[in-house]
This record gives sequence, structure tokens and C-alpha cells, in this order.
Amino acid sequence: MNIAIQGILGSFHHIVAHQYFGEDVNLTECLSFDVMPQLMNSNKVDGAVMAIENTLAGSILSNYALIDEFDLRIHGEVHLPIHHNLMALEGQSLSDIKEVWSHPMAILQCRKYFRDYPNIKLVEESDTAEVAKQIQDKKLMGIAAIASNMAAEIYNLNIIESEIQTRKQNYTRFFILKKSNGNIHTTNEVNKASLRFVTHHHTGSLSEVLRIFASFNMNLSKIQSLPIIDNPWNYSFFADVVFDDYQQFQKAIIEVKNKVSDLKVIGEYKQSKRKHDS
Amino acid sequence: MNIAIQGILGSFHHIVAHQYFGEDVNLTECLSFDVMPQLMNSNKVDGAVMAIENTLAGSILSNYALIDEFDLRIHGEVHLPIHHNLMALEGQSLSDIKEVWSHPMAILQCRKYFRDYPNIKLVEESDTAEVAKQIQDKKLMGIAAIASNMAAEIYNLNIIESEIQTRKQNYTRFFILKKSNGNIHTTNEVNKASLRFVTHHHTGSLSEVLRIFASFNMNLSKIQSLPIIDNPWNYSFFADVVFDDYQQFQKAIIEVKNKVSDLKVIGEYKQSKRKHDS
Repeated sequence: MNIAIQGILGSFHHIVAHQYFGEDVNLTECLSFDVMPQLMNSNKVDGAVMAIENTLAGSILSNYALIDEFDLRIHGEVHLPIHHNLMALEGQSLSDIKEVWSHPMAILQCRKYFRDYPNIKLVEESDTAEVAKQIQDKKLMGIAAIASNMAAEIYNLNIIESEIQTRKQNYTRFFILKKSNGNIHTTNEVNKASLRFVTHHHTGSLSEVLRIFASFNMNLSKIQSLPIIDNPWNYSFFADVVFDDYQQFQKAIIEVKNKVSDLKVIGEYKQSKRKHDS
Repeated sequence: MNIAIQGILGSFHHIVAHQYFGEDVNLTECLSFDVMPQLMNSNKVDGAVMAIENTLAGSILSNYALIDEFDLRIHGEVHLPIHHNLMALEGQSLSDIKEVWSHPMAILQCRKYFRDYPNIKLVEESDTAEVAKQIQDKKLMGIAAIASNMAAEIYNLNIIESEIQTRKQNYTRFFILKKSNGNIHTTNEVNKASLRFVTHHHTGSLSEVLRIFASFNMNLSKIQSLPIIDNPWNYSFFADVVFDDYQQFQKAIIEVKNKVSDLKVIGEYKQSKRKHDS
């Protein structure tokens, strides 16, 4: 099994890939999400791990757009508690640090911490772990990374301060993606689905769709309208539903199809438990 | 009238403040959104302009959280087409540029452009216009800003490349905020409202709320569920509704209050037209 991850070994995507597929999985390191669909569609990888939303930053709409555009399928989800740590070469302390390099999302999640250190310059890089590796490879002084414990271990850096994220309960939700013709779970494992649909113009059309979900005992666990510029009265939605009975889910989908102008089931999968931080 | 804006003169918030309040308004420059509620609550300003969502990046959940925590009220909205331009000192060309400094959101919106220039380092700063000012004040060579046309004019920089945002139709929606006891519009101007509510535990509770909106001829123009970590079966929503008849809106609110465990009307205001780029 070969799985594409965003970032290099030690990234949060690496941690998720191990949790989901076990430690024997082969990983293909990607320095942007954009290359993942190509890798999947050319069969260079069997799947991918892709961050989709975070408790602080919200949904990554551009990743929803990639999934939609390349017609990828969600095979599973993982909620990972994100622990950000400030790390540098052995012997460096906070007062030595002039610049912190990290992924934009990691910087965003630690912004409050750095307010107390206005002299530290925050620089965007494409991956949290990649910076940790660079600091070690090039023996960079005065530079720190924001990355996982795993990255500190792999690249042998010293953690100057741990848990620097703004919200201590900081979760990121990741999708496990496959090509649309990839294998899916057996139906008795499936209790969650991600949908994309476009409602008709009339008032109350979303309410009708949600009423159908409710009548089939499906719980809505996420809904998000997408900003559509060119046609402000047509709405597009991403929704997640949770259910106990797969047959009921299938019946609901048939009814919803009659109520919307477009419906795509992006994935049927097993809901992940959100583990609290240990 | 004194209005707080994120960033300094030449920022997109400055452009919005002029559009909404006219060019005679006094502006208080803020280098973060967090200081705005304090300025408002201590009556140092009469209101604030705050970016709330973008067509590419989605909602700024942390600003929704600020509005909620400090009990601010939305007085209006503006949809601004965002044109990002790469600018530097006169005489500098693209090949001279080693680093680009800008606001994280601006960098995010121009990420695709910079993929063709992997040697240019992207550095986060707190404001787009502030960088333009610094480049001029300190005569910085090799550094470019991503900022508005207005910033290029005010700080006398040369635009190396215009319209570098990934999506040409790139809009940001801004809220005009006032304190909760601030004056509001007359009701005959009001045709839109922003709400926050928490639904009860049972299946279909959101559908019931939306059905009420529909039965009073209110159109949903945005809905977003918020990730709640500690209680995954309680949902919190931010929703915007559009209506023609203010009396109907008031009746709907009374009915919705009986269906949810918490409801707050964050603002009643006039819907802004999204102008297409000229």
C-alpha cells in the first residue's frame, strides 16, 4: 500500500497515515495538496491523507474544491489532536530564535503565542516537518520549527516549548481519499457519509432536504454553504450525515435526489471517534 | 465618526471603510482584529470594519468567535472584490525580488502565482499596506509587497504585476460592527440578519428551524456549523437570512426561539450588492 501525505516524515499527515493504515504503509511525500489527485489518478499511489478542517481555522475550502474537481472519494476520516511544539538545534533557547519557519496553518494556530515575541519573524514554508529536517541538515542557528513530537524525534531537535497552539483542544480532521473506482468498506462498517448538493432556487429547499435526512433517522454532523459568486441565489452545500442503518441512508439519498439539482456522495465511511488528549 | 480598521491606510479595510462611511471618516489603524472589541467597548471608536469570509479561504472562524465573545453587533456588510498586486520600489523587477512580505490571507490567495517562483520566500506580516509603507520608508530592495492599488498609490510603489490572486473573482465579505447598544438602521432598510443558534439534541432539529424560516419567506444565504469538540452532539450554527418583510422576520425569530436552546441576533442590516469587477 502506497499513500500520499502532505509533507515529509514527521508531519501530522504521517501520524494520521500510521494511525489509519498501520506502520508498514509506504508513504509518498507531497509538498502541496494539489499534486495528490494526479498521483492518485495515475495510480502512483493507492490513496492519500488530506487535512480538511480544523477547530480553529475552519474548513479548507480549497481541499473540498480539489476533491470535487478530481472526483475523489472519501474512504475514511481521522480526528487528530494537534500538538504544536517549538523546536530548534540542541543548545538553542528561545532568546536565540530570530525566525520561525512553518506551514501557514501551523503559524495560524500558534499566532497568539508569538504575540509575546514580536521580534520573532514568522516565515511560511510548505511543511512543518520539512523545516525541522532543514534545521538539522543545515545546522541552522537562530531558526526554530513548529512541528510534531514525531518530527523532533526523527530530526533530533530540542523542544524549546511544547503545546504552543492557541487552543489546547486543537483538532484537525483528515480525509483518507481514494479514486472514485477504489474499493470501499463493506456496508456494515459504514455509518457516515459526505455529500455535496446544489439546492433549487425556491425558499425552503434546504429545509426540505434536511427534513428527509431527519425522517430517515440521519443526524447532520456538519453543514457548510459555499459562496457562489456568479449566481448568488443558487447554493451549494457540503454536508456530513451520520446514521445507524445503511439501507435507510440509501433510501434517503434517492428521495433527496428528487429535491436537489445535483447530488454527489463523496464518500461512505466509518465515523472516527474523537479521542481526547492523553 | 471614528472607525477601527485592520491594517493601516491603503489596506482593504480602509477601502471598505471609505465605501461604507465616505471619505471623511476618521480611521483608527489596528494591527490585529483582537484589539477591535476593546476599542469599541471603551468607546475609543464608534465602530469597526472586520473581514469575515473570503471566496477562496472561507469563513474566518476566529472573527466569528470575537464577535460572539464580546457581544458585538453587525451594522452592515460589504462585499469587496479583492485585487492583489505585487509591488516594490521603482526600478525593481520580478527577478530582483527575494522575499515577499504580506498578510497571511493575501499570501494564501496568491499561492498559485508564487508556485512559479519557488526561490521567492513568503513572509507573514500583520498587514498588506504596512509592508508597502515599510518598503518605501526604509527603501527596501529585493522585497515586494502584496497589496491594493490604493497602497501602491499612497506609498508610491511600482506595481510589478497586477491581479496575482489565484481566483480572478476573489471577493471578501466585511462586517461593519458596532457595540451591542449602538444605533441600528430603521427597520425599512433592514432585509438581512445574521444569527447564531444552538440546536437541541434530537435528529432533525436544524431542519425544523429552517422550515420556520421558509414558512416566513426568508431565504438562507449562508449556513455554517461550528465544530464543537467537547460535546459533539450539540451543534452551533451561524446563519444569514434574507427577507422582504421585517415583521415576518420578527415573527419567525419568536418561533425559532422555541425550537433552539440558544438564539442570538448578531445583526439586522441591509444586504450589500456584490458588484462585479469593473
